[in-house]
Amino acid sequence: MATTPADLAELLPDGRITVDPGRLASHAHDEGAGAPWALPAAVVLPRDTAEVAAVVARCAERGVPVVARGAGTGLSGGANATAGCVVVSFAAMNRVLRIDRDERLAVVQPGVVNEDLRAACAAEGLWYPPDPASAPWSTIGGNVATNAGGVCCVKYGVTRDYVLGLEAVTGRGEVVRLGRRTAKSSAGYALAGLLVGSEGTLGLVTEVTLRLRGERAREHTVVGYFDDLPAAGRAVAGVVASGVVPSALELVDRACLRAVDEWKNMGLTDGGNVLLLARCDAPGTAGEEEAGTVLECFRAAGASWSARSGDPAEADALFAARRLVHPALDRLGAVLSEDICVPRVLVPDMLAALERIAGRNGVRIAGLAHAGDGNLHPMLVVERGDERALARGREVFEEVVDQALALGGTVTGEHGVGLLKMRGLARELGPAVLDLHRGIKQVWDPAGILNPGKVFAV
Amino acid sequence: MATTPADLAELLPDGRITVDPGRLASHAHDEGAGAPWALPAAVVLPRDTAEVAAVVARCAERGVPVVARGAGTGLSGGANATAGCVVVSFAAMNRVLRIDRDERLAVVQPGVVNEDLRAACAAEGLWYPPDPASAPWSTIGGNVATNAGGVCCVKYGVTRDYVLGLEAVTGRGEVVRLGRRTAKSSAGYALAGLLVGSEGTLGLVTEVTLRLRGERAREHTVVGYFDDLPAAGRAVAGVVASGVVPSALELVDRACLRAVDEWKNMGLTDGGNVLLLARCDAPGTAGEEEAGTVLECFRAAGASWSARSGDPAEADALFAARRLVHPALDRLGAVLSEDICVPRVLVPDMLAALERIAGRNGVRIAGLAHAGDGNLHPMLVVERGDERALARGREVFEEVVDQALALGGTVTGEHGVGLLKMRGLARELGPAVLDLHRGIKQVWDPAGILNPGKVFAV
Repeated sequence: MATTPADLAELLPDGRITVDPGRLASHAHDEGAGAPWALPAAVVLPRDTAEVAAVVARCAERGVPVVARGAGTGLSGGANATAGCVVVSFAAMNRVLRIDRDERLAVVQPGVVNEDLRAACAAEGLWYPPDPASAPWSTIGGNVATNAGGVCCVKYGVTRDYVLGLEAVTGRGEVVRLGRRTAKSSAGYALAGLLVGSEGTLGLVTEVTLRLRGERAREHTVVGYFDDLPAAGRAVAGVVASGVVPSALELVDRACLRAVDEWKNMGLTDGGNVLLLARCDAPGTAGEEEAGTVLECFRAAGASWSARSGDPAEADALFAARRLVHPALDRLGAVLSEDICVPRVLVPDMLAALERIAGRNGVRIAGLAHAGDGNLHPMLVVERGDERALARGREVFEEVVDQALALGGTVTGEHGVGLLKMRGLARELGPAVLDLHRGIKQVWDPAGILNPGKVFAV
Repeated sequence: MATTPADLAELLPDGRITVDPGRLASHAHDEGAGAPWALPAAVVLPRDTAEVAAVVARCAERGVPVVARGAGTGLSGGANATAGCVVVSFAAMNRVLRIDRDERLAVVQPGVVNEDLRAACAAEGLWYPPDPASAPWSTIGGNVATNAGGVCCVKYGVTRDYVLGLEAVTGRGEVVRLGRRTAKSSAGYALAGLLVGSEGTLGLVTEVTLRLRGERAREHTVVGYFDDLPAAGRAVAGVVASGVVPSALELVDRACLRAVDEWKNMGLTDGGNVLLLARCDAPGTAGEEEAGTVLECFRAAGASWSARSGDPAEADALFAARRLVHPALDRLGAVLSEDICVPRVLVPDMLAALERIAGRNGVRIAGLAHAGDGNLHPMLVVERGDERALARGREVFEEVVDQALALGGTVTGEHGVGLLKMRGLARELGPAVLDLHRGIKQVWDPAGILNPGKVFAV
């Protein structure tokens, strides 16, 4: 029953399908360390929705799995190929189709890179907020698939909050338009929102209509160094209690700072053990006032050093350093990256639990967190190729996930479930809600070909 | 196969079920003029989730329709009883269970009245933004069912934007918890968002976890009178183009103003023919600057009179007058209320189309609009009991709906589909997307007992 590439080739023009072993290998997995993958039978690069629909319809007839792929920067294995599947890469559907200044929306193809869209919006005096650390590489299609977040979502929300409408190809190969382009609508079920975060299991997104904001006001940066995680945790709790909603509130621990220093020699560890980076962007003088309040919170929590950054270049450098944490750790080995999210007042509790879990298991967990919204990214670095260490790291992270659930949290704040969080998701949702997922999957993808084996077991 | 009240009575304590004819009649329909309804077999008033689940499970066994009901203020017939159904009233599940100041969330039962929740939040220095005109009476459960909007959603979004998590009873009588209480999550399908706006067709919502905001900054009010709708439309387009996002931008036409004057003698019509009410609430001096920009837009569009309101009492009175429009028209006869939403730059086009449609049909359409987000509420008043006039009014509104769709709009911005927008919804979505709705409905409600015959034909 397997689709041969020849079978697909008749649907697509020359050059839009490849079975080159190197290309197959480079499209076989994302960056989720430890997630299983296999080689696809073919990689296709459709140029338009009709080609996507033709490929999916043929695969549905043949019972061949279809795995959608953006830039492959995912961290949960959600884009990993299954043996003999067809990988649909959206690399050739990467255009910004329209930016509407008055209506404040953009219509884009799924393969457009997040930062390219943000630059195109900025040229029109507009702003697309979701800013995952992968923004220079990751695509809007991938961001939609995982409901990606980022640094500013503590104030401005995540990808789903910006998706007004979608065009998608269902598992039947049918093209559907979901959602709207108006500011609001109560017309039928929220199917566009349902597809956001569905990780390619319900449909392949072929066009996205995104809500935009006007240019943001100037950001004021506040930096604080703390001796230990509990002190930094108190500072975060203090900001939360103050009522200020910062446009960023990031935590970077010593292990992360050192990895960046060893690579880029930025002197980050000279300041202290735990770095908090905050930004405030209320318009006018209100932004300065907010920054003043955050600074007071940092000091009250016992910051060893804290300051407003008067120098935008310095502030940008610190935020850039935060984005370098993942690649800096990646130099040292395979990075297992967690993505739990807990109620934000419980960030200190979760940080303390992470220290306990690390101590109990004799490992060092590096800590990076969107602390302001309770989304923590504990990371473990293991030697590449050491499968036993990788498996042990995964076990440690199961403890982390259990702890997050015990605190009323969720197993994934912004990376998605993919393959790595399936066990955690089952625990988080319980059997009745999982059954609803299975039922909905069956409606959209009756042949079960769309990203099979991901998110939940069918 | 019909459930007898005795059959249900064994599931509920005394006084929680009624077959009193007066009570049945008062629970038979909402405020959607012209929508068909029938008498229910019984009205039940559960006190907790377990009682809701028991009733639904019994009705599922027996194949008896279940219609959920909040305050009955809906305008689309979504809460109308079908013959022999069981109406589940949430009047006795009306408690605010928790307000968490640090986490900025509230946990409420569905029967809590919108304004009661807002008052409870205000007492904690918090704010629940969605503010439908029905807020003094309508319940959070009903707001969730219709994805209700209101005046401030032009800046702050609609009900779905504030629902973090839900507890619900499916059509099988199963209790499920959906969504989350954390700031973000990418864990599985967005089922809480799916239930918002599903109008009781997928599940009965028994508890809601709502995101809150901090106390809002002071609002600055700008008032403008215009000679005609095109001038007011230009003013709206000007505000949109200016980049200011007001926290309210409401349009009230002469027919509405006169109805309020005739009732309350407020002298609204002395000012001019079309009233625009704007509010700006950026913090600090930025709010004043925004208000200044809006005032300039009003003047540039040819306002016959315009001013910032320095007097909060006067400003509140004008917004209160806007909320009186519906009850004021209701005094004159049965009010047919439309709820189309168009791209906001096309508000002038839609207003012009409404004048053409009214002229062609020899009727007078009163105009009320959340102009800033393109959500228009054209209204027709017909003599109560004049079924022919009612039917003709509905036909006129089908033209209005067609025009909204032609402009890229939606058939309902915030009232929901209920019974009155089913034809329009089918046109808006098309057969493939309607089939997805039917499939999803089947998953949640395999017996087809939840609010049958509403939103779409099964």
